[in-house]
Amino acid sequence: MSKIIDGKEISLSIKEELKKQIDKLPSKPVLVVIQVGNNEASNVYIKNKKIAASNIGMEFKHIHFDERITENELKEQINKLNNDNNINGIIVQLPLPNHLNSKNIINYIDPNKDIDGLTDINLGKLMSGSECMTSCTPTGVMQLIKEYNIDLGGKHVVIVGRSNLVGKPLIHMLLDEDATVTVTHSKTKDLISFTKQADILIVAVGKKHLITNNMIKEGAVIIDVGINRIDGKIYGDVDFENVLNKASYITPVPKGVGPMTVAMLLKNTLKSYYMMNKINKK
Amino acid sequence: MSKIIDGKEISLSIKEELKKQIDKLPSKPVLVVIQVGNNEASNVYIKNKKIAASNIGMEFKHIHFDERITENELKEQINKLNNDNNINGIIVQLPLPNHLNSKNIINYIDPNKDIDGLTDINLGKLMSGSECMTSCTPTGVMQLIKEYNIDLGGKHVVIVGRSNLVGKPLIHMLLDEDATVTVTHSKTKDLISFTKQADILIVAVGKKHLITNNMIKEGAVIIDVGINRIDGKIYGDVDFENVLNKASYITPVPKGVGPMTVAMLLKNTLKSYYMMNKINKK
Repeated sequence: MSKIIDGKEISLSIKEELKKQIDKLPSKPVLVVIQVGNNEASNVYIKNKKIAASNIGMEFKHIHFDERITENELKEQINKLNNDNNINGIIVQLPLPNHLNSKNIINYIDPNKDIDGLTDINLGKLMSGSECMTSCTPTGVMQLIKEYNIDLGGKHVVIVGRSNLVGKPLIHMLLDEDATVTVTHSKTKDLISFTKQADILIVAVGKKHLITNNMIKEGAVIIDVGINRIDGKIYGDVDFENVLNKASYITPVPKGVGPMTVAMLLKNTLKSYYMMNKINKK
Repeated sequence: MSKIIDGKEISLSIKEELKKQIDKLPSKPVLVVIQVGNNEASNVYIKNKKIAASNIGMEFKHIHFDERITENELKEQINKLNNDNNINGIIVQLPLPNHLNSKNIINYIDPNKDIDGLTDINLGKLMSGSECMTSCTPTGVMQLIKEYNIDLGGKHVVIVGRSNLVGKPLIHMLLDEDATVTVTHSKTKDLISFTKQADILIVAVGKKHLITNNMIKEGAVIIDVGINRIDGKIYGDVDFENVLNKASYITPVPKGVGPMTVAMLLKNTLKSYYMMNKINKK
């Protein structure tokens, strides 16, 4: 029987710890989300972040722009937030309307306030092994692995999916922990020949139930980053029920990796607060 | 019988092409190498770069500082070069004396003049798939693979070595070409089980003759980035004679990847010249 990795539970205890730390601070850390236009999914995500922030005593600001805002106007607004000593974390909620270049705009965020870890400079620092803000979902994956004392040294980790948001940052986080890392993706031939080798399999592609029993090794650790909404239900990239008895550890969807993402976002905001106020604390 | 990948020959034809392009320019592109102290190996490397640059009509400046220079003084000097419109490429020759923080100093170079592709911002851009200056040795490896029309799509490439200079940039260059990529290193267990799977094996660890006949697949492409100087002789990381009949293609050491590194450095300098002078050319 597989042990189920309880991301919900772990994220709650992380947020509790963050709350305790924030309670001791002279001022509240401030997280700003910039939204352009009215993407429906974005509205839900922003609401969830707002609730999570206020639950731990963090201040949350939602700045909403009309979708006709120009790139320069948006950059000007980001610049103000960069220079405001009371703002600790800045998120530009994606997707942006088509006339705005997301990469350019994200890269305009002060790297120290880039709590999503998406600026080129933070990606580069991650790659070269320097202290930096790291992307929340892969950081959440790493945290789950640590919480369950799953050793990575010398283990073969197979990542399915090479996105900038998850797959690519994970490569460097895993190499830093001495794992041997294989990256597979849509162009990989004979995917199963790779997934079957994995001591730890991390799947982040967005394909409902791509991974089934026959594709994994007996006793593998399975981390499912997929969130697929179909007819109002949420499915992972892994066929959970199907692999349940073969894996040693497995994350469910929902309540696996998902809740960790927001917890890491809040943790990064507090980290920025500590840096900006020169408080030495992890 | 393996086909030998002739890096010397290819680098010569690249340099010839660069020379032709430079001959047509209104001014000479300028490459600056900053040296601190008197590392003997550095003296040799700098001399080689100087010869290569002048051979193709590029101007080469060697700026030499006493090893007692402070970090701030060095940064000030780099800043002057960053702001000088006549300077196209800047290299800080490594290693630097211990009192200087190499990472900080490298990151002080204008990313557009960072022809070694070592600044965090260039690493991050490489990772996120943006146009940027890329590290010369891995770029040279990719160029060799292209020159021999070796298809990477869906191929399993195994990298031995996870250095910031070679292994890590290669991951992203190879993923961009749709390869499935495995990264192995000193902490990998059962290395041979990975190297034997490689359609293309790239070795960059600095261990004389680490890779032998029994460790490769019949018909594999072998790229040897290792340069090991022992008693005045140069050896690769691959036991060349030993694998010669089993590989389909193989790079020798010397005259394989080595000569490509300097060629890519010159190519990046010219690229910077084109960018700075707003000339559209690859």
